[in-house]
Amino acid sequence: MSVVLVGAGPGAADLLTLRAAAVLAAADVVVHDRLVGDDVLKLLADRTLRIDVGKIPGGGDSQHAINELLIDLARDYECVVRLKGGDPFVFGRGGEEVVALRAAGIDVEVVPGLSSAFSAPLLAGVPVTHRGLSRGVCVVTAVAEGGVEVDFRSLALPELTLVVLMGVARRASMAAQLCEGGLSRATPVAVVERAATSSQRVLRTVLGELAEADVSSPAVIVIGAVAALELASAQIAAQLGASA
Amino acid sequence: MSVVLVGAGPGAADLLTLRAAAVLAAADVVVHDRLVGDDVLKLLADRTLRIDVGKIPGGGDSQHAINELLIDLARDYECVVRLKGGDPFVFGRGGEEVVALRAAGIDVEVVPGLSSAFSAPLLAGVPVTHRGLSRGVCVVTAVAEGGVEVDFRSLALPELTLVVLMGVARRASMAAQLCEGGLSRATPVAVVERAATSSQRVLRTVLGELAEADVSSPAVIVIGAVAALELASAQIAAQLGASA
Repeated sequence: MSVVLVGAGPGAADLLTLRAAAVLAAADVVVHDRLVGDDVLKLLADRTLRIDVGKIPGGGDSQHAINELLIDLARDYECVVRLKGGDPFVFGRGGEEVVALRAAGIDVEVVPGLSSAFSAPLLAGVPVTHRGLSRGVCVVTAVAEGGVEVDFRSLALPELTLVVLMGVARRASMAAQLCEGGLSRATPVAVVERAATSSQRVLRTVLGELAEADVSSPAVIVIGAVAALELASAQIAAQLGASA
Repeated sequence: MSVVLVGAGPGAADLLTLRAAAVLAAADVVVHDRLVGDDVLKLLADRTLRIDVGKIPGGGDSQHAINELLIDLARDYECVVRLKGGDPFVFGRGGEEVVALRAAGIDVEVVPGLSSAFSAPLLAGVPVTHRGLSRGVCVVTAVAEGGVEVDFRSLALPELTLVVLMGVARRASMAAQLCEGGLSRATPVAVVERAATSSQRVLRTVLGELAEADVSSPAVIVIGAVAALELASAQIAAQLGASA
């Protein structure tokens, strides 16, 4: 009995790894969430059973329900794949699924994927590190955990790029806290909506104006001097459009 | 005239993206650095010219020489690939190469790759985020830039995982600064040597004992509560050994 946790990357099918594509091709059943692109699901064989768990409502209970589903499937099918957007171990609670499966006596393998934390900025032409502008990168979500929100004041680190996932709804308080922590209101910001899809859109602004920016989820928010750069050609977006 | 910057991922050939593999298969010439695994280079067609720039000595001058080489090659060959370990825009100075090539009138495309900052921890069974243990992740190198070293005291963020690339040589002062900044000497540490290769090795220790740990480069150092987890099965390492 085994389950393979696979990272689907940011959305475009050709941004899967070769290993992920090989595992998907062999899958009897694929349990996927909402963040996995249709482009990726098209790679599955006709015989493969697909289960979309992206619409199970609620918080902790829905994770429990997914764990139980995976355990049941592992007992019935030879090759069960849990397909997660991005990378299984960068947010997305892949670690919790591994713990639950192992507790039920099920072997788990994990195949990495491109996290949108790095690939969304790249596809928008933004290098998260760049000599003279950024010495490193910090990645967080703006989602509260156990009712406690991240305090962004401690993340006002001017030498590093800050990448925020799931931050659109909280962008006003986040920007205010970063300024309070010491970042300038003029700090460049790039918001990458629907990265790696044919409808990818990049909005450039500054921290002091982020609250009023017209942006929608899902989006990756990049904050720091590098966010003013645009080092990818339009060709890439065009190719994505052609392949989507 | 164009050049494609391609991320080679952490080392194993099947951890390339499908897009990267397609670009490599079409390459007339591939300019690669030392961090690109032999396993990846085996994918190249026999007709493809390979240029190893990993051994050009020196610092800024060698980057200048690489930029000039890429510009010359772009004038002579149709499909020039610059292949970099990990992701082109997560350290590795990919952004600088894009700037230099564009200034010479050459189009550049960028194909993302798995950064070892996330994939090395995963392959060692460490999720960089995990509910209750880590709300995010900060990635830096311990290499000085313009003679200035990173001050690790500001990176002592107990709610986040810290991933340090190229940190083996500086591990003693780094650990001391992190403790000075407020991290406990008992903070778990995992050192992942030669990630994604058949000789991958993981050493577990704590921050207070990192200075004395017997580790060698190249290695990824993971610091934080998650570094005590081991959520990948030995199967993965065995598979890697078989494919390498």
